[in-house]
Amino acid sequence: MTKTAYEFNQGRVIAAAADLFAKNGYHGTGVAELGEVVGLGRGALYHYIGSKESLLFAICSGQVDRMNNRAAEILTLALTPEKLLHEMARALLRNIADHRAEWTVFFREFSALTGERRERVLAARKAYEGHWRRAMDRGVEAGKLKETPPLLLKGILGMLNYTYLWFEPDGPLSPDELADQFIDALLYGIRA
Amino acid sequence: MTKTAYEFNQGRVIAAAADLFAKNGYHGTGVAELGEVVGLGRGALYHYIGSKESLLFAICSGQVDRMNNRAAEILTLALTPEKLLHEMARALLRNIADHRAEWTVFFREFSALTGERRERVLAARKAYEGHWRRAMDRGVEAGKLKETPPLLLKGILGMLNYTYLWFEPDGPLSPDELADQFIDALLYGIRA
Repeated sequence: MTKTAYEFNQGRVIAAAADLFAKNGYHGTGVAELGEVVGLGRGALYHYIGSKESLLFAICSGQVDRMNNRAAEILTLALTPEKLLHEMARALLRNIADHRAEWTVFFREFSALTGERRERVLAARKAYEGHWRRAMDRGVEAGKLKETPPLLLKGILGMLNYTYLWFEPDGPLSPDELADQFIDALLYGIRA
Repeated sequence: MTKTAYEFNQGRVIAAAADLFAKNGYHGTGVAELGEVVGLGRGALYHYIGSKESLLFAICSGQVDRMNNRAAEILTLALTPEKLLHEMARALLRNIADHRAEWTVFFREFSALTGERRERVLAARKAYEGHWRRAMDRGVEAGKLKETPPLLLKGILGMLNYTYLWFEPDGPLSPDELADQFIDALLYGIRA
């Protein structure tokens, strides 16, 4: 898929904004500062993005939307219930490792979104939880998993999501290995 | 323990600031706004708190310090390895449920701390992970738990910490019940 020049510049502005927001906060970052980093004036920035809040929306929704598409794909694969959870977790931890700035902004600054933008991100987040619910329920139907209560599912997602705070790409484990470690601990338990 | 008037007012300022920072962000909250909420002028605020950053420090370190004291206490109790994990998790989820504003500020705004304040909060967080490490290792020594690799421990803490984002005190589960659900899932696994 070839990107147009417009899409290319838009992506560049979003990535730079994610870095700045992650470093200095959404409220702590000025549009002028962003313009300097990407070498664009206020008018050109507006052309690519619109308002500062629409930029925050683009950052917050970008990776969740991608994860929703990926989760929907994974759910179409013929996988065992255990393997399905591994694949879901791997996809998420890979994405978090590749987009730590975006996820930092998502978790820290999401609450600055207002109105329809806020609703849309909340809906996307709920949809993502729904994909995990389907994955879990499939394991229950196959007689392989216990029922996962709703708040436990949130806890499991917390275990995965929270890696945005500490995962080191050059650390001892790859995102896939970490995902496997988490899912295996959940599947088999930590008792000896 | 009786609080002095100074301590009382200081606690009141810290609690109000935690609410404001959680709602509008650290950078998005002005000292004048805080003064209005607590009914104190700039001079009186300074008397109780010093700088805005020392206020952020008080919020971020307050609950972690308390959790460290509580974890150290729990580790002195004669508990089975399983019960020890339940107690550690219960203490944390109770505290998060009671202090959601403080934990929201902790996780979202911690990175705005600088210098020695930042170092001290990082050290407190590391100490808390150390208490969990000791709890886990005790289970290993007793032959009850498998080894918990370092990043899995971070994941388990993520599962617990991340509840600050969604736990509802009036929801279906109490903090203790949620803690038990999480720890049981980890101990026994989610396989049927």
